[in-house]
Order: sequence, then C-alpha cells, then structure tokens
Amino acid sequence: MKRNLKPKLFIPGPTHVNNDILESMSDYPIGHRTPEFSILYDDIVNGLKKILFTKNQIFLCTCSATGLWEAAVRNTVLKRCANFACGAFSKRWHDVTVMCGIKADLIEVELGNPITAEIIDKTLSSGKYDAMTFVHNETSTGVMSPINEVAKIMKNYPDVVFLVDMVSSMSSVKIPIDDLGIDVALASVQKGWAIPPGFSICSVSDIALSRSSKCSNKGYYFDFKVLEKYANRSQTPSTPSIPHLYALSNQLKRINSEGIEARFRRHQDMASIVQSWAKERMSLFPDDRYASTTLTCVENSLNIDLLMLQNLLLEQGYLISGGYGPLKGKTFRISHMGDLMPQEIYKLLGIIDQIIEEINK
Amino acid sequence: MKRNLKPKLFIPGPTHVNNDILESMSDYPIGHRTPEFSILYDDIVNGLKKILFTKNQIFLCTCSATGLWEAAVRNTVLKRCANFACGAFSKRWHDVTVMCGIKADLIEVELGNPITAEIIDKTLSSGKYDAMTFVHNETSTGVMSPINEVAKIMKNYPDVVFLVDMVSSMSSVKIPIDDLGIDVALASVQKGWAIPPGFSICSVSDIALSRSSKCSNKGYYFDFKVLEKYANRSQTPSTPSIPHLYALSNQLKRINSEGIEARFRRHQDMASIVQSWAKERMSLFPDDRYASTTLTCVENSLNIDLLMLQNLLLEQGYLISGGYGPLKGKTFRISHMGDLMPQEIYKLLGIIDQIIEEINK
Repeated sequence: MKRNLKPKLFIPGPTHVNNDILESMSDYPIGHRTPEFSILYDDIVNGLKKILFTKNQIFLCTCSATGLWEAAVRNTVLKRCANFACGAFSKRWHDVTVMCGIKADLIEVELGNPITAEIIDKTLSSGKYDAMTFVHNETSTGVMSPINEVAKIMKNYPDVVFLVDMVSSMSSVKIPIDDLGIDVALASVQKGWAIPPGFSICSVSDIALSRSSKCSNKGYYFDFKVLEKYANRSQTPSTPSIPHLYALSNQLKRINSEGIEARFRRHQDMASIVQSWAKERMSLFPDDRYASTTLTCVENSLNIDLLMLQNLLLEQGYLISGGYGPLKGKTFRISHMGDLMPQEIYKLLGIIDQIIEEINK
Repeated sequence: MKRNLKPKLFIPGPTHVNNDILESMSDYPIGHRTPEFSILYDDIVNGLKKILFTKNQIFLCTCSATGLWEAAVRNTVLKRCANFACGAFSKRWHDVTVMCGIKADLIEVELGNPITAEIIDKTLSSGKYDAMTFVHNETSTGVMSPINEVAKIMKNYPDVVFLVDMVSSMSSVKIPIDDLGIDVALASVQKGWAIPPGFSICSVSDIALSRSSKCSNKGYYFDFKVLEKYANRSQTPSTPSIPHLYALSNQLKRINSEGIEARFRRHQDMASIVQSWAKERMSLFPDDRYASTTLTCVENSLNIDLLMLQNLLLEQGYLISGGYGPLKGKTFRISHMGDLMPQEIYKLLGIIDQIIEEINK
C-alpha cells in the first residue's frame, strides 16, 4: 500500500503548520546575547501576555511541555502535590511528579469524565496539599475540563498553587490567566500555536516564583528563579531555539491579524462542525458538556476497522489519530486546532464519510 | 551607526549555518509516533554512531546542552562528583551539579590553562568520587584540554563515571568515544554541527545506564532510563523538535559527502590559519599547546578598542565575540568550526586587519 510520506496533520500534535510559519523556521540565526535578540524576545513576551491575558512572567523554554511539567512541580511543591487525572496525559504528570522525588497523590476520574470543581474541592479540603496539577484539555479522551468553575473553587485555596497544563488549549480557547488566578500555565508550541514541535511557553505568577525560592534540588535548566533572572534582561539562561522564536514571533503577528477573538470563535466553529458530524454518524466519547473545543474523540459505535480507516486516509494524504491506550480500537481522534480552517475540516470529514461508505460496502 | 541585523556568525555559538541546512528546518512536520519518524530517527542515530566512533546508546534531546549537563550528573552520581573547571562554562557545570542537590567539588585551574591528566589523577586518587565532569573545549578561554591523556588516566578509575562536554568539539575534532571510555558525551547542535540552536545529542554507556537505574529523583525529562526505553523503539519520550531532526539528518549526509576525516582536517587547517594570524599580530591567550581547534581566544596585546573592532565588523556583516567575564576587554574570540571554510576565515581576518589599521591611524 502506497503511503503518503508527508500527510496533512489532523492529529493532536504536532498539528498542521502553515507554509508561512515553516518558512520563518529557516531564517538565519542571530546571537542570543545580542541587542537584536532581546528585541525579538520582548516582542514575543509582550505578544504572549496579551493572548494569555496575564501580567505574570513569561518564560520561553527550549523543551517539550513534558519538561515544563517537571519545572512546575519542582519549583512549587514544598509539602504535597495533588495530581488530578482524567486520562493518560494528566496521569503522566503524576508519574513525572513522583519521579522528581516529590510527595504526590493521584486523584483519578473515569475515562470520558472531566476533572470537576467538586472533586478538587473535596480533595484539597483535607489541607494536605500545597500544589495541584490540572490538565485543561486531555487529548487522550477529548475531554475539556471546566476551568472556570475549577478556578472559582481554587480561590478558596490561596495556599494551594494552581498548576495548569494548557498544552492543547492555549491560544485556541480564551483562558484569562490572571482573572482565573493560574499560577503556572504551560504549553508546547506544536498544538494550538501551530508551530513545529520543539519549544514551550509558560507563565509564572509571583506566588509560584516565591515558592521557587524555597524549593531545593530544582536543578538549573528548569529553575524558575534562573529563568526569571535572565527574563529580566530579555534573555534566556542558555542558547534557545532561535528558529522557534522566529516562528513564534511570526505566529503572533498572524494571530493579531486574524484577531484573537476571531481565532477563539473559529475554534468553537470547528469543534461544532466535528461534534455534530460525530454525533450524526456515531457518538462522542466524552460527556457532551465537556467535549473538547480543540480535539474530538469519536466513539467507534459503528465498529469500523479503524486501522483501515486511518490507512485509507493516509493514502489520500491525511493523518488522524486512533484511540489512546485502553481506548484503542474503540475511539478515534480528530484534531481541529491551530491554523486549520473550517473548510479543511469539512473536506476531511467528507473524505472520512466516503471511506466509511467504501468500507461498509 | 548602522548595524547589519543578520551578521555572519563567527561566535562560539550559534555558529554559521548553511542555507541548505536552514532550508531543511522548514520541512513540513511528521507525527512522532509514525513509522516514518522511526526511520528518520534510526538514520540519524546510526549516522551519529559513526561520527562519534561509538556503539553506546545515542539520545536525541530537545534542550540545550545545559539540560544535558543536568542529565549527566542526575543519572550517574551516587556518591560525589568532581567538577573540573578551566573557565566559565566548565565552572557552570559545577553550579548546575550543586543545584541538582548532588554532592560535588569544584577543582579549578587558572584561566588559560587546561585540565590535565595530572590534576585529575591527583583528585580522583582520594577515592571520594564516583563521577567526574570534564569540558573538552572551554570556549570562554579557547583552551582545548588534552582528552586523550585524560582518558588514559581515567582507565585507572573504572568506578568513576567519565562525563564529557563536547559542546564545541563534537564533529569538529576526532574523539573516539568507545576507545577513550567516555561514559556520557554531550553536545548541542549549534556549534560544530552548524545547525540552528535548540537541540542536543548525547551518547551514554552501559555503565552510565546501570548507574541511572540506581539514582533517584532524576525527574522524567532527563532520565536516561526513560530515554533508553523509547530509543529502543526508535522514538523519543516526548514530542521532539522535528525541524532539528530534519536538519541533523541533512547535516549527516553533508558530512559524509565531505568525508569525516576531511572535516577534521579542515578544522585543523582553520585553527592553524587563525592561530598563526593571532600570533603574528598579537598573541594567543591560552598556552600554545592547548589552543583550541575550534575557537581562538586572542590576547589583546595591541590594546585595541575591542568594542570598536566588533562594531566596525558588524557594519560589514560579521559577528565575533569579545572576552568572556573577567577576560572582557583583554581578549576577543573568533570561532572557526562547523561549516565555515578556510576562505571565509581568510576573508574575516583580512577585514579585521583593515579595521585594526584604520583604528590605529
């Protein structure tokens, strides 16, 4: 079977990247201790602050978001961390926390369900924790947990640092970081930002920074205080990925020209399109109320041969994702975030319809 | 004063990058859990093993080399680490070690001197250490320490893990990792590899891997055992920088077409050119016998206004480095590694000569 070697990406990450952004990756590098670098750095940080609705420190990190999971817990947990999980990725943040030698408990809900304000309230009311981790959008199940309600409850726990993974929602969904009181918000760039993988972003509050001063054995690479010291002079502690900075700077311009509110609306529109399609053909895996705005996890209620579906799509130049872990064969996932447009989503769904018809012949 | 915004780089990093390599950074990404990814991964790892003369595990890491400093010590030190330093960067590896909560001692030599087999022997004979860090090429002073002699002495200390920073020598200088018994060899790609910054490479021996099994609180992102688990299936634990993998794959092809021995010779030739020039005009900062093959640190014995020299060079589109830290004003540094060619070095030196003449008028 012929496979298209560079299929268009409809997977949760890396997501589709526009040519314009790809081209900025190949600009000639500049020295990271030059005035030109600091201008680029400031330009990006200021742009990010607007889109994230925050006055917090912004750190630009050469790593994947997994590295920032580690950073978030190493810099803030003094007592014990509550890791809330509703799928494979939020659960892995717990594994990472434990591997850092940090005391932590895993609080899990059933696959397909969200992490609710209730479960968080119940857990934190024990008084055992001084930090919690929350994954806004769980890509393994297509669940977007209710961050606004969660943030409301978190106001009752001012001593519990609020660590949020926005890996697959940042820049796609409106999350006003300062209003919600999020202490650390982190994401990689190969999801909603629609930039090739290899770089991450986080915002860090004063509370998280003052915690960091009290934490030990943080290492250097992910130490918020080291990052802060260099950020204050518009630099990074070590040589960053300059190509990713070029791409990010370009992407911020593109987002501004689309308009951030229009971008959020486009994501809602794309989610509606895919969710309606999925409910008409099969069904949604998650509870309808918590179906993600950036990725749809479709329950394979028609019992289609998903491997065949994926392979036939590949032949036409499209890559989607199967079910993750225990959901393999039972679900498939279509990503609709970043720079994808509604017409591209319609086109993909049309092709899937044709393939399903063909398979069912 | 007009400044050229994208000057050609003759700094120790990022170094000059060829258009061909830059272009590969903008190829459309592929999914990191696809068969195509694993083919790319294997191709790179096999290519690296040849150039590094090793059968050890190779890990491809989305971070700067600073991250791998941390990885090297977190995964191998159970007792106490000896950090040998001959300048700012080798000294920083000690700071990083301590910041990881690892017991460590700093053994420093005077600026301009190398780390010798003698000082290592003297230190390790105490029996206090189970790991040591060694920076092959110290870019702040232009000193290349005698790695062959050091490796010979290290054979007497089989219980001391040999951790080597090859940041500014890997792929530029022949370092047969297995013959020398190097347990961890690490480098970023924006030096000798002549790829834009944002990615790092390391080779890890079985001894280092078995140490890693015994170390705790390593975290996840830099855990050699996690990296090994994924490397064994030709993948990385988290989404890597795909653009850097494209560039690395392309660079390996280019190196093979030049011939690795020819590449090493070209670096020796460029070093001779710059060293002769420096000795004729002024003098070398380091002891002649240990002058680096990849970067020359020139002693400013003519007492030139170095800021003026650098600025006038910038106007003509060239970026060189001033002295680092305490050597500011006293030295300047010209990098001659990666994809630079002797004729480009001659051209730069000619322009520097003109500028010095102009300044001295």
